[in-house]
Amino acid sequence: MSQQQFSSSLLENAVNEFAKLPGIGRKTALRLVLHLLKQSEPEVELFGNSFIRLRKEIVYCKVCHNISDTEVCNICSNASRDKETVCVVENIKDVMSVENTQQFRGLYHVLGGIISPMDGVGPGDLEIESLVQRVANEGVKEVILALSTTMEGDTTNFYIFRKLAPFNIKITTIARGIAIGDELEYADEVTLGRSILNRVDFTNSFK
Amino acid sequence: MSQQQFSSSLLENAVNEFAKLPGIGRKTALRLVLHLLKQSEPEVELFGNSFIRLRKEIVYCKVCHNISDTEVCNICSNASRDKETVCVVENIKDVMSVENTQQFRGLYHVLGGIISPMDGVGPGDLEIESLVQRVANEGVKEVILALSTTMEGDTTNFYIFRKLAPFNIKITTIARGIAIGDELEYADEVTLGRSILNRVDFTNSFK
Repeated sequence: MSQQQFSSSLLENAVNEFAKLPGIGRKTALRLVLHLLKQSEPEVELFGNSFIRLRKEIVYCKVCHNISDTEVCNICSNASRDKETVCVVENIKDVMSVENTQQFRGLYHVLGGIISPMDGVGPGDLEIESLVQRVANEGVKEVILALSTTMEGDTTNFYIFRKLAPFNIKITTIARGIAIGDELEYADEVTLGRSILNRVDFTNSFK
Repeated sequence: MSQQQFSSSLLENAVNEFAKLPGIGRKTALRLVLHLLKQSEPEVELFGNSFIRLRKEIVYCKVCHNISDTEVCNICSNASRDKETVCVVENIKDVMSVENTQQFRGLYHVLGGIISPMDGVGPGDLEIESLVQRVANEGVKEVILALSTTMEGDTTNFYIFRKLAPFNIKITTIARGIAIGDELEYADEVTLGRSILNRVDFTNSFK
């Protein structure tokens, strides 16, 4: 659809707005807009305003920097969560991923990125200093580094590790190894090698 | 992603709104919302308001019932278009499809659907009476029926044909046949049979 003819500039405008989103082409955009046109006016208002309100009113938790409706997010303010364990993640999507496992009852710390000189992201651009402050002042006993297994992730892990070394706390990273359901045949050598080095006691493997 | 945990009800709400759209799952919705969060506030306002404005301000052309910004759409009000030829289509998407071919310089008439007893759509639900009025009063000389080649399309074609029979005008349908680029081997028999019955003079086939 090179030069789509529109009989309405309102329609054209709405299609253009949709097509700006990543992964949404002009054909899909048109289909979505025509779907919206069939909805009632209040429904479309709810739709449009949900994004405007989100963008306007969203705040970031002043403790963990996760996305939040309130000054302190509902994870940080949840009394039943373990305040001594902090899981360091790159972004809010990773918070959701870890939360979805339902295996973690501690708090989070969202860095807002990872150290990546290629993209011009240095330690100063990330929430590392505030992590050090949390560890210094809030009785944190363990920091779990849950970053990607990339060079950038490893660099960031190492930077944080050094920053936190003066404190008498446990610093761990999430386990690297063969994914559950994967066949050894298709695992890459580095992962397989690491998973042998970091083998766990068989009785622990059921936990 | 069965029960996604959201730390913000604003975020959850925005994701839910996106996920209501056809073909957009919750993972895609989250990705799109996080993309919007990275845009500036005015940009997100433009995005959200484009749909609200479209839904509120859109009008349907009182002549051809195509979607429009004004009472009479820019096709119907275009003086350079052939007012004696009217192409009857099912919906506004079909108007765009025909416009994109750049082969048609006449006007349109959007039925707003096709006769489909299974879906409870009868002739009274469609803009057929207004088509008859146009033919009766506006000097139309040819009506081109450009509906889908389905049973519903054929039924609607026949209904319109009977309604327009009293008028002394030409009634045509778009040509059915082998699509350009298709191989005969894979064409269905009905289409191939029809394309033999309705064969055209070779010298005309280049037009």
